[in-house]
Amino acid sequence: MKKPRWVIEKEQARRADAAGTVWLFGLHAVRDALENPRREKLRLVVTRNAADKLSEAIAASGLAPEVVDPRKFAAPLDPGSVHQGAALEVKPLDWGPLAELALRDGPGAPRLVLLDRVTDPHNVGAILRSAEVFGARAVIAPRHQSAPETGALAKAASGALERQPYLRVRNLADAIAELQGMGYLVLGLAGEAQASVESAIEGRRDRPVALVLGAEGPGLRPRTRGSVDALVRIEVAGDFGSLNVSNAAAVALYAARA
Amino acid sequence: MKKPRWVIEKEQARRADAAGTVWLFGLHAVRDALENPRREKLRLVVTRNAADKLSEAIAASGLAPEVVDPRKFAAPLDPGSVHQGAALEVKPLDWGPLAELALRDGPGAPRLVLLDRVTDPHNVGAILRSAEVFGARAVIAPRHQSAPETGALAKAASGALERQPYLRVRNLADAIAELQGMGYLVLGLAGEAQASVESAIEGRRDRPVALVLGAEGPGLRPRTRGSVDALVRIEVAGDFGSLNVSNAAAVALYAARA
Repeated sequence: MKKPRWVIEKEQARRADAAGTVWLFGLHAVRDALENPRREKLRLVVTRNAADKLSEAIAASGLAPEVVDPRKFAAPLDPGSVHQGAALEVKPLDWGPLAELALRDGPGAPRLVLLDRVTDPHNVGAILRSAEVFGARAVIAPRHQSAPETGALAKAASGALERQPYLRVRNLADAIAELQGMGYLVLGLAGEAQASVESAIEGRRDRPVALVLGAEGPGLRPRTRGSVDALVRIEVAGDFGSLNVSNAAAVALYAARA
Repeated sequence: MKKPRWVIEKEQARRADAAGTVWLFGLHAVRDALENPRREKLRLVVTRNAADKLSEAIAASGLAPEVVDPRKFAAPLDPGSVHQGAALEVKPLDWGPLAELALRDGPGAPRLVLLDRVTDPHNVGAILRSAEVFGARAVIAPRHQSAPETGALAKAASGALERQPYLRVRNLADAIAELQGMGYLVLGLAGEAQASVESAIEGRRDRPVALVLGAEGPGLRPRTRGSVDALVRIEVAGDFGSLNVSNAAAVALYAARA
């Protein structure tokens, strides 16, 4: 039996973590990484065709590309990866300490997204895009039981991984306490909560707000639930169904916009 | 070189379209289909373990399961499919004509989501979930250049495919004209639009509203843009980035909630 995709991605993530480097792939993700001066770049493997499309970004990066035959694409990627002829080995980005990120300048009052065991790289990638669009200062996740910075995550983030801080902390409950100490209102999303996101921040939209989302199904861990200032829900119309976690994050960011 | 996942999914969709049947997989999707009386079920292939977990749903369906050895799982699925030992061959659901769906009863004033060339089954699956949660009457897409009803779509929809109408029409512009004739306000999402979703429906939240979203990148086709009543955007904080299309749909449904 062939390995399912999530097993391959997990193994890949483990290898990348061990090596301390990540292989990004796809024209969009590779271009944005090449153009990011904060990104430490190690190796660029491209087809002639991709090299042409990325010529400006490659020139700007100062990196010497390894141009390869499309039939012998040499980067160590998941066989199903839609690499479009471009792969770039990089170091993970260093976003610095939580305190600095949480209080950095940005549009409107500060917003943060905290993820409690959201491990799917496609969801986390989409959440980074939404966080960027709604001006959130960062996306925070625990170091374990979260999605590491991988090529699949970068591809789903469609460039946002280069610009939107994605910080993995040792302990989420400690991070919540630290944020509360900085004046953050910390709201945990839970389907059974009484208050809506909007009612919880009514009259205090100018305050820093952190939104905590759990994995689909299990939701927030007990310790996380016990740490937040309030549990809130997204105002919905019916009694049926549930939102995909990245959709829930996008709606919560919109509902809590400053 | 191995076929990328999207090629496999495309081929699978084409085969399923030709055969007129779909293979659903995964415990959640299979259970919800088994329990759906409107769903025409043909063959159920399960491992002993999955049969135990699905025993109530199988009994309710009246279907005789084919119990197979997990190492020789016999359903014709994409090799990477996370089937969890359960696969069900079904006929696509028949949701009836647009006019009936658009005016059916439901929570609040009617809402619809129209998709213009959104072909990714994972995004369409997530959109079906959001449509259900926000009480939209249906999700409408053109018959061509859209995501057909496949196992991958059903899995991403996490059960919503059984309950949330997903109607594929011959021509999207004709459907828009028909909806306008029924009193629908049809809003096309476009990043460069001046009006926000909220400002466009201000004072007319009690009207039926259809939200039209295009594929990421190209956006709405010219003919679609020319057909809608107004172009609107999602109110965002920054100038950077863009939302994943399913996240954009969720936020638009929330912003336009009745």
